[in-house]
Amino acid sequence: MCQLLGMSGNTPTDICFSFSGFHARGGLTDVHRDGWGIAFFEGRGVRVFVDAQATVDSPVATLVRQYPIRSRAVIAHIRKATHGRVALENTHPFQRELWGRYWVFAHNGHLGDYRPALNGRFRPVGDTDSEHAFCWMLEHLALRGPAAPIDHALAELAGIVGQHGEFNFLLSDGDVLYAHCASRLSYIVREAPFGEAHLADCDLSIDFRAVTTPQDRVAVIATLPLTDNEAWHAIPGGTLVAFRDGQPIAWHPTGAACAPTARTRGTA
Amino acid sequence: MCQLLGMSGNTPTDICFSFSGFHARGGLTDVHRDGWGIAFFEGRGVRVFVDAQATVDSPVATLVRQYPIRSRAVIAHIRKATHGRVALENTHPFQRELWGRYWVFAHNGHLGDYRPALNGRFRPVGDTDSEHAFCWMLEHLALRGPAAPIDHALAELAGIVGQHGEFNFLLSDGDVLYAHCASRLSYIVREAPFGEAHLADCDLSIDFRAVTTPQDRVAVIATLPLTDNEAWHAIPGGTLVAFRDGQPIAWHPTGAACAPTARTRGTA
Repeated sequence: MCQLLGMSGNTPTDICFSFSGFHARGGLTDVHRDGWGIAFFEGRGVRVFVDAQATVDSPVATLVRQYPIRSRAVIAHIRKATHGRVALENTHPFQRELWGRYWVFAHNGHLGDYRPALNGRFRPVGDTDSEHAFCWMLEHLALRGPAAPIDHALAELAGIVGQHGEFNFLLSDGDVLYAHCASRLSYIVREAPFGEAHLADCDLSIDFRAVTTPQDRVAVIATLPLTDNEAWHAIPGGTLVAFRDGQPIAWHPTGAACAPTARTRGTA
Repeated sequence: MCQLLGMSGNTPTDICFSFSGFHARGGLTDVHRDGWGIAFFEGRGVRVFVDAQATVDSPVATLVRQYPIRSRAVIAHIRKATHGRVALENTHPFQRELWGRYWVFAHNGHLGDYRPALNGRFRPVGDTDSEHAFCWMLEHLALRGPAAPIDHALAELAGIVGQHGEFNFLLSDGDVLYAHCASRLSYIVREAPFGEAHLADCDLSIDFRAVTTPQDRVAVIATLPLTDNEAWHAIPGGTLVAFRDGQPIAWHPTGAACAPTARTRGTA
């Protein structure tokens, strides 16, 4: 089982604080040792850092934790391999191009031996159920075309994939961040008046008043709340939420609610 | 104008030594300050580091220079913006997926306002002539199908694109590294008996005898030779060379030879 971290902001924001807590789960306070990755959108461009090592052993993770890359949309993932061996090509997030935009995807959950029929427009490079699901959803977005409402389409597609198992995911084109909760996904919106936050996974605090302007707004989405002194909102199972500019802008039922697997239960 | 660096090895090899010299050209010994990027294939997976900053100012470049990522195929690029503004989405190398493999591409030269007709299968995210050429070549590889000999197809496609300007490029799917020389591209094959090499761009030497086995073989391809005490081979203009396992395996004329632009001449 894996863990997800996402961010949507109305201004380019670094994720160093949240990543510090998330990073600790990659082998230090938790069992997700089988790779990690993070994607930062900057304008239309994206930087994807992936590593098949545990975050706590990864020089690249140390860089990401210390070097403030400012972005309006971030997706990160730490992996405990369940389907697909430990290899770079099986490390989330996955990236493809559609309609002249990069799309980035990370998944938490099991889809069993999910191998949907694909027309070849998008093909998995690795052998995870997750990348197959990503390719299938992009194929069907492409077939519907860019004029179709993307959040409605994704809600329908998430419901179909979710029939095969636990399908929590984050997906973004750098503009909107789509978060689908099947079993477990929480979010928080930070905006003025800002306060202080304390990480649940290590003794690190930040006073957001010192590093923000009154106009800033950031939504952070995570499998499990990252801080222990703020009110996180659990997204209901079977719901796709579209985040933009640091806040939820649309909610869609998908019918893909399921109970967390034992492994997910064990990761808190 | 930009500079290219590629590597093909028969064993996973780090590129720290060559990147140290290449890195210096990104703002220290040369004028390529408008971004840089490097892609490391590891198995079927790939890590692409891109940064719109100069290499000499980039913490990510410092990481890449110091952290030995071992790979059998590497493509790197430092950019002096000529077409397309300085932005992450215009930073080489570019990446797409075709036939379940990642393809990575970097270009040196000018193609003017090259905007080929595209069927939409691959679309540029940024606004460089280079990414348009990459998308057009992948589209035509896809149309011919995976059974067609790729090096013959690429030689023909490189010749067509090369009618629009100076088209030096490196392209790889992680297995074969294709190097097209229009005006300027050199390579060296390092194999037993190994010797010592000294960088042209900074006072750094390496004794390869200390870090290799007799079976190792690595080809390094660069716009301009990176060392000043080894015999580099200039690839003839209008030639596509396929490298695999650290050596050239096929040579194809493309008819796309041209003189280096003044800017390229000025970068030595």
